[in-house]
Amino acid sequence: MLNPADADFRAQLATRLPEGTLSDADAAYLTEPRGRWTGHGLLARPRSTAEVAAIVRACGEARVGIVPWSGGTGLVGGQVMPDGPAPVILSVERMAALRAVYPEENAMVVEAGMILADVHAQATAVGRLFPLTLASEGSARIGGNLSTNAGGVHVLRYGNARDLCLGLEAVLPDGSVLHGLKRLRKDNTGYDLKNLLIGAEGSLGIITAASLKLHPVPAAEGTALVVVEGPEAALRLLAIAQARLGGLVSAFELIGRAGLDFLTETLPDLRQPFPQPPDWMVLVELGLPEGLDPQAALEGLFEVGVAAGLVQDGIIAASEAQRQDFWKIREMIPEANRRIGAVSSHDISLPLGEVAGFIASCGPAIGALGPFRINCFGHLGDGNLHYNVFPPRGGRRADWDAERDAIKTLVHDRVHALGGSVSAEHGIGRLKVGDLERYGDPAKLAAMRAIKAALDPAGIMNPGAVLRG
Amino acid sequence: MLNPADADFRAQLATRLPEGTLSDADAAYLTEPRGRWTGHGLLARPRSTAEVAAIVRACGEARVGIVPWSGGTGLVGGQVMPDGPAPVILSVERMAALRAVYPEENAMVVEAGMILADVHAQATAVGRLFPLTLASEGSARIGGNLSTNAGGVHVLRYGNARDLCLGLEAVLPDGSVLHGLKRLRKDNTGYDLKNLLIGAEGSLGIITAASLKLHPVPAAEGTALVVVEGPEAALRLLAIAQARLGGLVSAFELIGRAGLDFLTETLPDLRQPFPQPPDWMVLVELGLPEGLDPQAALEGLFEVGVAAGLVQDGIIAASEAQRQDFWKIREMIPEANRRIGAVSSHDISLPLGEVAGFIASCGPAIGALGPFRINCFGHLGDGNLHYNVFPPRGGRRADWDAERDAIKTLVHDRVHALGGSVSAEHGIGRLKVGDLERYGDPAKLAAMRAIKAALDPAGIMNPGAVLRG
Repeated sequence: MLNPADADFRAQLATRLPEGTLSDADAAYLTEPRGRWTGHGLLARPRSTAEVAAIVRACGEARVGIVPWSGGTGLVGGQVMPDGPAPVILSVERMAALRAVYPEENAMVVEAGMILADVHAQATAVGRLFPLTLASEGSARIGGNLSTNAGGVHVLRYGNARDLCLGLEAVLPDGSVLHGLKRLRKDNTGYDLKNLLIGAEGSLGIITAASLKLHPVPAAEGTALVVVEGPEAALRLLAIAQARLGGLVSAFELIGRAGLDFLTETLPDLRQPFPQPPDWMVLVELGLPEGLDPQAALEGLFEVGVAAGLVQDGIIAASEAQRQDFWKIREMIPEANRRIGAVSSHDISLPLGEVAGFIASCGPAIGALGPFRINCFGHLGDGNLHYNVFPPRGGRRADWDAERDAIKTLVHDRVHALGGSVSAEHGIGRLKVGDLERYGDPAKLAAMRAIKAALDPAGIMNPGAVLRG
Repeated sequence: MLNPADADFRAQLATRLPEGTLSDADAAYLTEPRGRWTGHGLLARPRSTAEVAAIVRACGEARVGIVPWSGGTGLVGGQVMPDGPAPVILSVERMAALRAVYPEENAMVVEAGMILADVHAQATAVGRLFPLTLASEGSARIGGNLSTNAGGVHVLRYGNARDLCLGLEAVLPDGSVLHGLKRLRKDNTGYDLKNLLIGAEGSLGIITAASLKLHPVPAAEGTALVVVEGPEAALRLLAIAQARLGGLVSAFELIGRAGLDFLTETLPDLRQPFPQPPDWMVLVELGLPEGLDPQAALEGLFEVGVAAGLVQDGIIAASEAQRQDFWKIREMIPEANRRIGAVSSHDISLPLGEVAGFIASCGPAIGALGPFRINCFGHLGDGNLHYNVFPPRGGRRADWDAERDAIKTLVHDRVHALGGSVSAEHGIGRLKVGDLERYGDPAKLAAMRAIKAALDPAGIMNPGAVLRG
């Protein structure tokens, strides 16, 4: 059993830390974007890895829980502990330094609290690309991006957060510091603790700094919106693009009619690309080396797509402003979703070969539960769909709350049966602990529990996240 | 303490398995390529995952060790247990089936015993590429490649074995089967056991099947040998190539004068590309999409390299036969090394920015120990050097045995001090257990031991490999 971070503990911990490290947690640290939970706890904002270690050791001795806090943008409640003994909320915001950059090595060492957009800027400043790109990049911090193995729109080409990390520094649950900031492309010396910490959502330790992998900036980019017959046609178009261009397709995002309708309803000033909203389109982005012309490459793809009966229409961005307009369509869909209010949201992935069949069959099955609207969009190239279910037009979410569990179970059961994942990129947090228990492989769960018990026997690290406490 | 796989155990185990599963282990299963160790044990060749699980359970009950055996090509003794109670040598050779292939998903599911060259052939048969390429691919098996996180010549572009794996099926030390053969690009449901098993060298479980990532076959390839001033110039040339071509550089291999001299001495019939062997050259390979001409791309790179003072000479392969000749130069260097006989071999990696300085300073330091010849070659793009030290010309390895430890310590100490790795791609096995203890981060080692104890409390899985038993 854990103890609360009460006044006595606070007083005792304060003696080990510089003044101003501890404070009451205001609302910003106690809420999460979807408003499902309200947390509690004592806020700690250390300035160094040594201070993080001191806090972890003190919590270990007193058996006080720790909730790591990075940008607070997570969508599964990993950053908010709503019940149980009050924890220490350990924010890495004051550890946001660029420790070193090695452009010739395509590597950079940053502290966990650096905001993702600042990571981008630091890479850009030395003529490199840090490709991790997601909606919350203006407030998400790299430590949290790594802890949750964040995804986003460029996974197709550059991989998840874990694929963009060469090494980690972290404080483990016993207060020891893992010094793993190597910037090597090959290092086969023992177990892969880096990837164990990435995706553990703070339940096995606190990432304090990371050695990141940078990429060359493509010489030219080309972006198009392509109207396709449906998800199956979109995937066939992607296969053609990859056969022609190999790994040069940077993004391949699916947008459905519902998403465009939601934009019209909630953000009518947003310029829509087609006068008649198509049922399905994809946002394709290419990042090309010298010698390849993006316009020509996209036109070639378009022609082949038309000839194969996959493509009906399309627009190639003719300027950077138009390119940003295209991306705005994609990026504002989550905002439109928020304004309308989903009954149930699902962050799922499927084997690519199962995507089209899932979309075709799941809609009618949900229709049998009620007159819902479905906005299915996302990272089609990764098989990752944001499959969100909404009340009928004009309806209110609250009126359909009773259906949420049935919808969620229907979607997740189908995804699981097709070999998919019920958390493609958002993680488990506290929201999906039950899903992990329901759908997770028993041997995997047993191994996870054994590892958690071995590294964090007192269970102080993010109690109740990922695994039931 | 473990018990031996003695006659009683064998008789008891035989009752749980089909006839012919167990046999005496002949020499092929008791030796390793460098001839440093001779193993012992009872050979088990199961035909299914269920049989692997039955063997593991029986070994767990009787506390008998298990040495997983894949292709037997490992270079650090992970596959051979020379002392202690006789283990079960568990070979996956009879589990070599292609379970399924999904070309449109760029995915394939194979059993652990499939030979790497057969994995290549299966991918080629569906118009795809499985990029993992290494000298022993004709006998290495994919389970071992994954267990050791194999590297090879295409890591620069496609990553290590772990980057080419989407999911695993494995038997864990308690005999449970981890069902993780998902073929998803995104799946954030819990701890990353896949990457924990990859690189654990059989010490945490036995990989029985894998879901592999395939890639599109480049539309055109171009290969050149480029004479450079030295490793620093080679790395600057690589940076230029990456700025121009992004991720399209498939290989960038360093070859030094010593390697060419060794080829002349031991394989005089091998055609050498340059009449006067250069001090340093690189083998560059590009894999390009439609629309880019390899000849033009290589000529452009060459011209820029000459203008920058980095490049002295070069030959672009004009035919597939010439391309293979170029690769043969690179691939026969390990054979030439074997024929000459190294006093000490090192599989090291360094941050790219430290490579040239290391090469420049380490040679003279070794020279101070004796008149050694150094053959430094390898995967320069990854910062991975095979840095091998030989007797003076005409000398015999045996005469210099006394210097081996001093040389090894000198090389490894320098690599470690520069933030490098003393095992870039070969792993720890039994050869480098002491190196891991000497150079490994204490917090990492403690966490590794805790994980090992948690998942394999009796210590039956590959006893003495990676961690001291």
